[in-house]
Amino acid sequence: MRFLGVRLLDVGDGWVETELAITDQLRQQHGFAHAGVVASLADHTAGAAATTAVGEGASVVTADYTIHLLRPGTGEILRSRGEIVRAGNSLIVSGSDVWADGSHCARYTGTMAVVDRPV
Amino acid sequence: MRFLGVRLLDVGDGWVETELAITDQLRQQHGFAHAGVVASLADHTAGAAATTAVGEGASVVTADYTIHLLRPGTGEILRSRGEIVRAGNSLIVSGSDVWADGSHCARYTGTMAVVDRPV
Amino acid sequence: MRFLGVRLLDVGDGWVETELAITDQLRQQHGFAHAGVVASLADHTAGAAATTAVGEGASVVTADYTIHLLRPGTGEILRSRGEIVRAGNSLIVSGSDVWADGSHCARYTGTMAVVDRPV
Amino acid sequence: MRFLGVRLLDVGDGWVETELAITDQLRQQHGFAHAGVVASLADHTAGAAATTAVGEGASVVTADYTIHLLRPGTGEILRSRGEIVRAGNSLIVSGSDVWADGSHCARYTGTMAVVDRPV
Repeated sequence: MRFLGVRLLDVGDGWVETELAITDQLRQQHGFAHAGVVASLADHTAGAAATTAVGEGASVVTADYTIHLLRPGTGEILRSRGEIVRAGNSLIVSGSDVWADGSHCARYTGTMAVVDRPV
Repeated sequence: MRFLGVRLLDVGDGWVETELAITDQLRQQHGFAHAGVVASLADHTAGAAATTAVGEGASVVTADYTIHLLRPGTGEILRSRGEIVRAGNSLIVSGSDVWADGSHCARYTGTMAVVDRPV
Repeated sequence: MRFLGVRLLDVGDGWVETELAITDQLRQQHGFAHAGVVASLADHTAGAAATTAVGEGASVVTADYTIHLLRPGTGEILRSRGEIVRAGNSLIVSGSDVWADGSHCARYTGTMAVVDRPV
Repeated sequence: MRFLGVRLLDVGDGWVETELAITDQLRQQHGFAHAGVVASLADHTAGAAATTAVGEGASVVTADYTIHLLRPGTGEILRSRGEIVRAGNSLIVSGSDVWADGSHCARYTGTMAVVDRPV
């Protein structure tokens, strides 16, 4: 996620919290965070939550996700919380929400495949 | 989509074709196009297809989408084709596929809301 | 939902709780609730939650939904809780979860269109 | 799918075609096929297509799916065609469409897990 600049705020078993500063290059023509940026943050955060459930040397890759874009990504900072919905041995379902300026702007649910080596 | 650099290749009633050069800043640590880049291209292309069905001065915004990431985004260029699935008066369902190096790397389906002014 | 027999347990502003007895005709060959039954309950419950946010004489129809099937639908009773994620004027995003025997067996998120007359 | 009565019409490598008679008990209050019935047919058909890609003794279970409900399920018969989007070793992405009275009424995309014994 280096191309966006996501910061990890906090992490526990099965969950993480992140934030992302909305720099000018991440805004669309009306000044909101681009939908692709909101989705990337949501995917990254849900994936990081899923990673807390896999062992040393394993990682996860997103097989599919669904995102509902609820409001424009206004303001200066996006925050996100990701949380595992169900961790199986080979598949993990993980969800996340994104807030912009304190308003709920996206809900994400993804299916992640556990892979044996870091991705 | 200026922050990615998507190019429109061709367009007709209900469909468009696009491409995107995978520059270094769009790659993740293994050299593949970042999933967020593939998803942004898919969303942009499906949205552009949907836009061909709305009148002058109207536009579409993505309400939600689902994407299945089928293969890594390898190579130098991503290509995408978007096509309307069903155009209603207020909602348009539009799909797209993305290919990397000629391999099918993503399938997308989105629900778009028609809005009265450009977005 | 008469063909399944969903019962409304409780309702508030933006949420409802329901249950469904898993009769023999709703089971697949291994004795679990059929995935279609779990999905129908989830859709019905999220739709009922959404309906609490629309005015007299209006209703909602599901435009699209995503469901993650987390575990088999075991036991005798499915329970579900639906809750609005975001209520707009013309679209409502509503989610639900389903439990079987106290285990979380499905997560659902749907986009619903508000329509002017009962559906 | 015995509780609905889906019939297999044709099958090939990676695809199947099915149909379902809309009996009275499968209709909602306006006489259309219930959304849950359309979704069950779509899921069954996509799953059957996926099954053509797995070996003897293996089967698939739906991990998640997204369905877009495009039009009411009118008429007497629903038809569906399912087709594999991408078959991996442990996950298969499979899609389907449903038509009612010749009109496209639903698009489905699902992620299926390959399991070693029949489900």
